[in-house]
Amino acid sequence: MTSTFDPKTFAPDHFGWAFADRVATITLDRPEKKNPLTFASYAELRDLFRALVYARHVKAVVIIGAGGNFCSGGDVHEIIAPLTKMAMPELIDFTRMTGDLVKAMRACPQPIVAAIDGICAGAGAIMAMASDLRLATAEAKTAFLFTRVGLAGADMGACAILPRIIGQGRAAELLYTGRSMSSEEGVAWGFHNRLVAGDALLDEAQTLARTLADGPNFAHAMTKRQLEQEWSVSIETAIEMEAQAQAICMATKDFTRAYEAFAAKRKPVFEGN
Amino acid sequence: MTSTFDPKTFAPDHFGWAFADRVATITLDRPEKKNPLTFASYAELRDLFRALVYARHVKAVVIIGAGGNFCSGGDVHEIIAPLTKMAMPELIDFTRMTGDLVKAMRACPQPIVAAIDGICAGAGAIMAMASDLRLATAEAKTAFLFTRVGLAGADMGACAILPRIIGQGRAAELLYTGRSMSSEEGVAWGFHNRLVAGDALLDEAQTLARTLADGPNFAHAMTKRQLEQEWSVSIETAIEMEAQAQAICMATKDFTRAYEAFAAKRKPVFEGN
Amino acid sequence: MTSTFDPKTFAPDHFGWAFADRVATITLDRPEKKNPLTFASYAELRDLFRALVYARHVKAVVIIGAGGNFCSGGDVHEIIAPLTKMAMPELIDFTRMTGDLVKAMRACPQPIVAAIDGICAGAGAIMAMASDLRLATAEAKTAFLFTRVGLAGADMGACAILPRIIGQGRAAELLYTGRSMSSEEGVAWGFHNRLVAGDALLDEAQTLARTLADGPNFAHAMTKRQLEQEWSVSIETAIEMEAQAQAICMATKDFTRAYEAFAAKRKPVFEGN
Repeated sequence: MTSTFDPKTFAPDHFGWAFADRVATITLDRPEKKNPLTFASYAELRDLFRALVYARHVKAVVIIGAGGNFCSGGDVHEIIAPLTKMAMPELIDFTRMTGDLVKAMRACPQPIVAAIDGICAGAGAIMAMASDLRLATAEAKTAFLFTRVGLAGADMGACAILPRIIGQGRAAELLYTGRSMSSEEGVAWGFHNRLVAGDALLDEAQTLARTLADGPNFAHAMTKRQLEQEWSVSIETAIEMEAQAQAICMATKDFTRAYEAFAAKRKPVFEGN
Repeated sequence: MTSTFDPKTFAPDHFGWAFADRVATITLDRPEKKNPLTFASYAELRDLFRALVYARHVKAVVIIGAGGNFCSGGDVHEIIAPLTKMAMPELIDFTRMTGDLVKAMRACPQPIVAAIDGICAGAGAIMAMASDLRLATAEAKTAFLFTRVGLAGADMGACAILPRIIGQGRAAELLYTGRSMSSEEGVAWGFHNRLVAGDALLDEAQTLARTLADGPNFAHAMTKRQLEQEWSVSIETAIEMEAQAQAICMATKDFTRAYEAFAAKRKPVFEGN
Repeated sequence: MTSTFDPKTFAPDHFGWAFADRVATITLDRPEKKNPLTFASYAELRDLFRALVYARHVKAVVIIGAGGNFCSGGDVHEIIAPLTKMAMPELIDFTRMTGDLVKAMRACPQPIVAAIDGICAGAGAIMAMASDLRLATAEAKTAFLFTRVGLAGADMGACAILPRIIGQGRAAELLYTGRSMSSEEGVAWGFHNRLVAGDALLDEAQTLARTLADGPNFAHAMTKRQLEQEWSVSIETAIEMEAQAQAICMATKDFTRAYEAFAAKRKPVFEGN
């Protein structure tokens, strides 16, 4: 249940990191290239989200890009070029590593808020998709553009997850054509939860994250787990899963705290246990 | 196949009941408290929907609340307070009972129309979600507010069912934050089928229910069953399931009645067999 | 891997066929009756989509109707009348044949673009639903009207597929009531990808199909396969499936071609291998 990860001292090599008021902020930070990912940054992001499982002081996560863009996806020179020269064992190692990033984002207990401005493409669009909530600016352009580099839309879970967010027909269009989804489409289709002004993006995302950090964290983590685990079960099974999940939450002190606060006509203060 | 349930004489203790023109109307009727549920009303609703499986004279169901609100959810004093004092065996008994209400709503053959005005919160939002169709007024505010009482959004199937109605991203927001979905959002997101005027709500819901009661009831029940059973199967399996389901419906007299009415240029009169 | 199907010489008995610039166009062509289907046209369409699995020169498919309507569904006199006289073995033969058409549309590797004008009803609505992308005119009226002929909405996969496109609540309404979805609703709900002018419908659909035909075809076919196969698996399983699927695509020359084109600042020319 423990690891050596300390959010206060964590100093990643390949992205920015800030930790304040229980909220971690990850900044993809190669703005001159619109924040592309490399083999090393993929791996470090995967390892971070895996470590967050044990990072009890981190209650919510924000992901943002530097310089007015979210993320341009896998770097063409640093990722695409070498991939074109790899044999199958190395290729599957790579696609499993990228998939592991999504798995780790879904498996960590903290809600993840993506803050999307400008270019949000390829693996960047996937990271947005794999987040729990998405705020965007009017300039956000989200493109699952794998087809443009000769690949399938089946990347890191997109054929399964994107249809559940925006519907099967819209997802098919984005995945077959690789075209950008505008910010207006993103809100109308349920990809973005809300549009915010560009200069308020980080602040709005952190404010939302802090609201989630206020808890109840144990229950939020259960909500996240169940949104994931009930994906492909029958309605009857899902209902029994939730009977068990919610009974566990009813055994927490946060449930009692909420009731006592209600009875005393004050706002509850949750402690995550 | 039979039970002692008689819709004409049924007199529930904990909600209103009317039966006319093949349509049953359930009225949550504690308007001074916005129609909250209690242990007893949960159980009686569950038992009613279970009995409806055998109630062949009831062809459709309307659920509405009295006094301008749908339902405020589990009563804080009568449900939340005792729950905070229960041990796990009692807690899981409770969460399974509430889940059984949703299972019973999905398992009864009658289409259920929720008529939503004002507050529609917690277990009230779940009952709306578990209905087949939803009409609402402009004043409807639907909140899956379990997080506000320290609990998970994983309640009575919400993490499985709500994403399929409004999309995974919007459902995540509602379940993590507990905020109200406005009536405009509800229509735009596909939760509400239509908005109607407040003073016409009951009439519109009963009119819609009567239209469904006109049948073909056997086929409607099959539609309801298949919408439920095909939830988590492959496309290929779903297609074979529907080949069987529809072949059964083609063996009913209602199918012949429809054809004969068409040939005679009159409106079909279905009999549910 | 081969069959005798030749798109240049194919001459179907029950619908129109054109093949140009790698795009096949199927025209439902009984405009005086709004292009209904018959036993024979169902079977010939099923056989065509099965043959397309081996038709490597066909890269995309357009389906359109003649005379300002898409398809009025199963012909009342030629299909419904005989069905009312059939015994169960014949009925299930029929419903399996119609289901096999949808299975074949989903199983062929080519993306299918439905071009929808006017009446799109019953089996016509199903064919639109079973396509990958849908363009429509303002006059398009799409009705899953099985209930009107005494049958269930559970036809050819509709209870499974339609909810994933437009959401569970809207699908329930269309399937229970049989009412038409307007073109405005179709776009707002994600059924139609885009509305186009009536006199531009065929051209727009073929232009979109040609864009898809430009490839990468191998990757497009993988996208289609994965959109199908990941329908009812867990997120974790879907991510591993995509790791494998995308690694396969990374071993194609089209992936290298895309990279080389990018490096040379020109548009890639894909060859589907």
